[in-house]
Amino acid sequence: MEESNGKEERIKGEVLFKGRMLRLEQDVVRLPNGREASREVVRHPGAVAIIALQDQHVLLVRQYRYAIAQETWEIPAGKLDLNENPEACAQRELREETGYRGTMEHICSFYTTPGFTDEVIHLYFARDLVWDPLAPDDDEFIDVEKVLWDVAVLKAQRGEFNDAKTMLGILLVKGLIG
Amino acid sequence: MEESNGKEERIKGEVLFKGRMLRLEQDVVRLPNGREASREVVRHPGAVAIIALQDQHVLLVRQYRYAIAQETWEIPAGKLDLNENPEACAQRELREETGYRGTMEHICSFYTTPGFTDEVIHLYFARDLVWDPLAPDDDEFIDVEKVLWDVAVLKAQRGEFNDAKTMLGILLVKGLIG
Repeated sequence: MEESNGKEERIKGEVLFKGRMLRLEQDVVRLPNGREASREVVRHPGAVAIIALQDQHVLLVRQYRYAIAQETWEIPAGKLDLNENPEACAQRELREETGYRGTMEHICSFYTTPGFTDEVIHLYFARDLVWDPLAPDDDEFIDVEKVLWDVAVLKAQRGEFNDAKTMLGILLVKGLIG
Repeated sequence: MEESNGKEERIKGEVLFKGRMLRLEQDVVRLPNGREASREVVRHPGAVAIIALQDQHVLLVRQYRYAIAQETWEIPAGKLDLNENPEACAQRELREETGYRGTMEHICSFYTTPGFTDEVIHLYFARDLVWDPLAPDDDEFIDVEKVLWDVAVLKAQRGEFNDAKTMLGILLVKGLIG
């Protein structure tokens, strides 16, 4: 192994935009070679995503995603509220989006795209689901679909979901439960 | 299956920031229930990522990621240049980051985080690698590591990489080649 290349030191920066969900920062950094460079960073509160299994089915949500101008099938997911515990957030989002609560097992956490954002997703595995709905967000329009687990696994293995966390979550849990 | 919830119609919008890599837009949309809502969208040129195998090893790059203030181990990846073909981009990025070119097989394409950005990653599987380096980007400081494929697979199955595309790419290719 070679030496680490060392970090990039922040020289200065400014907040270009602070929105409902995102904060955009533009920083000037000192590179390992002494030169300066600009870094655009989208600050995000972090999120959770949940693989929820019930009777050999996985709960997926179908929703219109404005950023990509199409409908997606995704595992339930949502942003952390301020100071919210990730497991509590996973339970809340599962109840809001699907109506169910379950036992929550943390699988792993990962960055969605570390080249430009600090968004982290905490992935949970929910089982022993019981009906215990919470009112969803006002502006969220989603349908819940129960999809055969084996079908979802096959779709993920074939790369047929277009959402990274959905395929990754399914493949990771498939590895756990065989 | 239930009816689709329909799309969100753009009413108006503005470009809040146009940077080197990202464009931040804030739009007002009409929801399916007739109400208006704000949508923050990070427009991204799209990217490629490459699983490159050689002699039972996978090529990983180690680099400091400013957005998350830590070093990561990731599969080679990079942004599309304007009008660049994804496969040509994958070859270019592999040569720039690792020095190798290879045969390129498209595995699938996915959105990294469709809740707020249109960034898509085109995933490629590179084999039959030959040494054919291209000069890397001036501001990129990366180390290349050859990691035993079986070790990388185990790390991905355990959720031990912190980068989504790296784990997803490894698990998808593992499913292909057994």
